[in-house]
Amino acid sequence: MRNLKTILAYDGSGYHGWQVQAGVNTVQETVEKILSAILKHDVRVVSSGRTDAGVHAIGQVINFFTPSSIPEEGLLKAMNSMLPGDIKVSHIEEVPPGFNARFTAKSKTYVYMIETSEVLSPFLTRYALHLPGRLDIDAMDISAKMLLGEHDFSSFMGAGSAVKTTIRRIMVSEVFTRDTKVYFLIKGSGFLRHMVRNIVGTLILIGQGRMEPGDMKGIISLKDRAFAGPTAPPQGLYLVGVEYDDLCRTKGKSKARQE
Amino acid sequence: MRNLKTILAYDGSGYHGWQVQAGVNTVQETVEKILSAILKHDVRVVSSGRTDAGVHAIGQVINFFTPSSIPEEGLLKAMNSMLPGDIKVSHIEEVPPGFNARFTAKSKTYVYMIETSEVLSPFLTRYALHLPGRLDIDAMDISAKMLLGEHDFSSFMGAGSAVKTTIRRIMVSEVFTRDTKVYFLIKGSGFLRHMVRNIVGTLILIGQGRMEPGDMKGIISLKDRAFAGPTAPPQGLYLVGVEYDDLCRTKGKSKARQE
Repeated sequence: MRNLKTILAYDGSGYHGWQVQAGVNTVQETVEKILSAILKHDVRVVSSGRTDAGVHAIGQVINFFTPSSIPEEGLLKAMNSMLPGDIKVSHIEEVPPGFNARFTAKSKTYVYMIETSEVLSPFLTRYALHLPGRLDIDAMDISAKMLLGEHDFSSFMGAGSAVKTTIRRIMVSEVFTRDTKVYFLIKGSGFLRHMVRNIVGTLILIGQGRMEPGDMKGIISLKDRAFAGPTAPPQGLYLVGVEYDDLCRTKGKSKARQE
Repeated sequence: MRNLKTILAYDGSGYHGWQVQAGVNTVQETVEKILSAILKHDVRVVSSGRTDAGVHAIGQVINFFTPSSIPEEGLLKAMNSMLPGDIKVSHIEEVPPGFNARFTAKSKTYVYMIETSEVLSPFLTRYALHLPGRLDIDAMDISAKMLLGEHDFSSFMGAGSAVKTTIRRIMVSEVFTRDTKVYFLIKGSGFLRHMVRNIVGTLILIGQGRMEPGDMKGIISLKDRAFAGPTAPPQGLYLVGVEYDDLCRTKGKSKARQE
């Protein structure tokens, strides 16, 4: 059996999120159906984690096992010709059997995009949060950097989660701007349910002057969801990539990559 | 009665084109419904011209008459709050009664976008033509420039058109590239049905080496649709703007513009 690591990009606006659910269209179901058709056996994939309805991915990572000897490049082309236009495969490579897209992930990177211009382009309605008006980028960036390091992020965890630990390590956390767009970039060892969107909701209150930059530290230490801002909507969120240790990542075998 | 010139941008992927048709969702119908609701009287708008299903607009121009004294700025805000996210108003201004978005238009500008990378981003599937592989940009640009000036464009007219004259004047026509994208920019006194998409279909054959750059001149002079290339698909096409003579454009009254 070969273990194939696969990187996917998808426009989440047409799907009820990543994970298979009865009666609704999900990215996982769409990918498994196409893979099963190509490989002629039932395929279940493991992903680095689910994405919510409307959330996009530029570098979602999955892995699956197959006895098929189809070369990676051929499989990539077959997948891209059969998948709908809003899901694409950018990379497939064979990895050691121990590679698991979820459990061997070292870190994940997300970007959140806010458009601050008065009128939102009709081409961005599914791809950004529209928040007209001025945001204090410096205040937001100072607050974002307070998330760096290891913390208990209970204050930013969505309801209904069952996790062993609410402690996560954040390696990159910054707010920057380009033209009328504001971006929040965060890289961490892992993320709790709705964590990025709840952090964005809090950063927005700070950017609007409705909270002080220093409040971020207090919110973290209170470990209570009630003190953080609201959950930012899904359409501004992009799973940019998932990082793995080198030893897990490659077997030194052939790779197929396409831009 | 005030005559209001209004500039619209829309993502055409969710609509059966501009023009009202029974039983399907069109941009014109959506805009007229919202305007009628805001202005409390039936509104019929005149546009610079129809756009086909799936074609986008960055600067479609319309005009309509209303006895309402609602300021342009207030109307713009009301429209943008009531219109669906994929249609937005960027500008409203009062113009003389003689202004007609269709008949006083001096020229129109279109852009067509081709993505040549091996895998199309899932975010571009509704917004570009995917054509992986190398295109000879120089050959395409040389051919594009042969369209400049006044010509009979019968060879590029879609079937089923009834027009008084097939002569049009082209002021700008060029092909350029940015990263893996190829753009065709054309500005003309007017365009026949499917004319831009039929020109793009021909330019692609030239870019792929299946026709010579010089063939463009022959195709124009043959005045026969059969000699031109196929109609390029709609999703790569954008109506960028419509230009009017200054004397028609403004009454020197208040303007509302938002970026």
